[in-house]
Amino acid sequence: MRDFLPVDVRKRRFVIDIVREVYESFGFEPLETPAVENLDTLMGKYGEEGSQLVFKILKRGEKLDLSESELADLALRYDLTVPLARVVANHRNDLPKFFKRYQIQPVWRADRPAKGRFREFYQCDVDAIGSTSMIVEAELCSAVSRILERLGFDDFTIRLNHRELLREMLGAAGISVPSQTDALVAIDKLDKIGVDGVKKELSERGISGESADSILGFIAEVSLKKGNEEILSAAGSFIGGESDAVKELKEILALSGAGKIRIDPSLARGLSYYTGAIFEISVPDLAGSLGGGGRYDGLIGMFGKDQIPACGFSLGLERIIVVMDERGMFPTDIENGSADVMVAVWSEESASESIAVAESLRGAGLRVLVYPEVDKLGKQFKYASQIGIPKVCVLGESEIAEGTVTIKDMESGDQVTVKRAEAAASLAR
Amino acid sequence: MRDFLPVDVRKRRFVIDIVREVYESFGFEPLETPAVENLDTLMGKYGEEGSQLVFKILKRGEKLDLSESELADLALRYDLTVPLARVVANHRNDLPKFFKRYQIQPVWRADRPAKGRFREFYQCDVDAIGSTSMIVEAELCSAVSRILERLGFDDFTIRLNHRELLREMLGAAGISVPSQTDALVAIDKLDKIGVDGVKKELSERGISGESADSILGFIAEVSLKKGNEEILSAAGSFIGGESDAVKELKEILALSGAGKIRIDPSLARGLSYYTGAIFEISVPDLAGSLGGGGRYDGLIGMFGKDQIPACGFSLGLERIIVVMDERGMFPTDIENGSADVMVAVWSEESASESIAVAESLRGAGLRVLVYPEVDKLGKQFKYASQIGIPKVCVLGESEIAEGTVTIKDMESGDQVTVKRAEAAASLAR
Repeated sequence: MRDFLPVDVRKRRFVIDIVREVYESFGFEPLETPAVENLDTLMGKYGEEGSQLVFKILKRGEKLDLSESELADLALRYDLTVPLARVVANHRNDLPKFFKRYQIQPVWRADRPAKGRFREFYQCDVDAIGSTSMIVEAELCSAVSRILERLGFDDFTIRLNHRELLREMLGAAGISVPSQTDALVAIDKLDKIGVDGVKKELSERGISGESADSILGFIAEVSLKKGNEEILSAAGSFIGGESDAVKELKEILALSGAGKIRIDPSLARGLSYYTGAIFEISVPDLAGSLGGGGRYDGLIGMFGKDQIPACGFSLGLERIIVVMDERGMFPTDIENGSADVMVAVWSEESASESIAVAESLRGAGLRVLVYPEVDKLGKQFKYASQIGIPKVCVLGESEIAEGTVTIKDMESGDQVTVKRAEAAASLAR
Repeated sequence: MRDFLPVDVRKRRFVIDIVREVYESFGFEPLETPAVENLDTLMGKYGEEGSQLVFKILKRGEKLDLSESELADLALRYDLTVPLARVVANHRNDLPKFFKRYQIQPVWRADRPAKGRFREFYQCDVDAIGSTSMIVEAELCSAVSRILERLGFDDFTIRLNHRELLREMLGAAGISVPSQTDALVAIDKLDKIGVDGVKKELSERGISGESADSILGFIAEVSLKKGNEEILSAAGSFIGGESDAVKELKEILALSGAGKIRIDPSLARGLSYYTGAIFEISVPDLAGSLGGGGRYDGLIGMFGKDQIPACGFSLGLERIIVVMDERGMFPTDIENGSADVMVAVWSEESASESIAVAESLRGAGLRVLVYPEVDKLGKQFKYASQIGIPKVCVLGESEIAEGTVTIKDMESGDQVTVKRAEAAASLAR
């Protein structure tokens, strides 16, 4: 977990402002939920690995000879999707039938840190609740593409797959339904541990070498194919006919137009709540993804009596910033100083005059720092230079007597003395 | 802890945007810190009551026959001041000599909830590090006043006192130094439990009835006085001469000009880290305060080898919103719908045309919702009305054939059919 100093916060806000603007342009509305959820809201939603990474909060005032399950009944949220599902189930009557929401907040995972991976990180989630139409998937892909384009990315790919197609593929490879979840967990690691690693893990999970070869052989085969149509056609052949899952993927492609989407039958996604289409965004220079998501038509029903369909996408703020930093994609003025002008303080007696001038300059829309104590003028100038403030106003004895201000340009060293009422206009020039 | 639905988030953002804008106009820079701090960073900083309210995070994979102190080594932050002090000590070389920062983030306290008091709440903190000058106190008061004025408050008071003056008063009342911290905790509750309650608590803490009567009598006496000068003069007499603390309070008043500040010798502030001036903002219709702060010249030194002076102010976002809601201070359009226009979907076949029109309208700066599935047009219109979207675009067969869009005004019911390229301009009218 990290501290964000001012330049870091400005970069984060630069990205967040664009994310928010694009999501709102698609009619998504903002939602915020508490950092802390009931432990049992989170448990059983993320799969075996996820549950181990939840930060639990110690009960207060309890006796301590209890089992771990009784020491904690609260936990830090692990993602923004499960809290959304809880909110939709709890607030069903306060929300529109098709609730389109975005949420930009931190989540916490007790994971091993890596490049662009932290124990506290921000997710920029966008989800559409209430419809099973593939229009939803298409719009989500369109919204995140727009965000990445606005940020300056031109080389990203949205990898697209379908949980049902994956299960059909596993079935076609001879892996029985009870073993399929295990198999998905292993295949999800293909990027990280390679074909041999996955083969070993499949074997450890009791899946036959024949089945492993069949599924991994198919994945290797389609990874050589160029076109989405070709890949989907091969998948159809492998599973013995065009299934609903294949049809849905075709529909998403048709609704999304030409673009950044590539069908990837090896994409599995770790979280256990996905039921339909799944996505992941990658760029060449980052292992791991900038974001991902998918359809989860069963999750909201776990919190209420109604089964409500849903689909969402999550962008990882820190991942995006890591890549943008490395590529120099931030505007250069993001490193600029904290104020447009500094007002120096000449003496104890004149400090209130300095404060008054600062107030009037702020009234004219300027960001104005008052040097916080009486000090030698040279030292005050030096400080303004050091922290990158371009202009300094000085109110010495003669300026106060005459109702003027002297403005020093820190780059050129030029000074000009103007009437107080004209100071703001002079600074704006 | 609460969920914030879209209207709530808009209200929060309305306030936060003004807070941020005003803080930046004073040259404060943004900082963000993690929600989770090391437990020992937080312990011993907030006084006896505060420490009990810290949420601790359960260690993972530990044996469970441990004492409570060994079950947790992390905790949720309790305020934004202690994390700031840690950051300043850790990042001394990356920060300017006079670090002026603001920070708007949630904090967590395992407190009993009350009106405007929650277990998760946002603080809007502003602090100036590195100077002992009263210019700092004056600018902080000025910044928070400006914020409240911009939000529409005209009846707030900044109550001002000084920790040293309090100690001098306690000394003058015959309370010895070791008992003074206890006495401060009791006097801090004057608003909540009244004179008799404080007297009882002082007695329970071993303070003589004579001392209690002396200090409470003085507080009652000055509460009748009108002018700040008069109050400070009475305080000077009570403690037997004008102390440095009294001089500092006079200086703050002089630098702040006429205004909202009222000297209040009963103001104690609960947190134990304050060393100098302390403030609290109140409005007539809220028990408790909208915010508060003070000088804490000893805190940063607890995290590093250098003792660095500091002073800050914290506004409570939820308190401000509670009062603004009750008084109807939010702009009425904050309840408005999520989009400027909805594009209806006529058929499976034409869905991609609807998406394309939506994209082009977004390109023109509009917020555009696509109805997320194929449905009867009447139902789609009804939905747009329900969620407050003023215009709906329809692309039926004839519109698609002719390259046009029909735009329906949901309030008047009027319809107009225009060329696609003119749709954005027509909607903007």
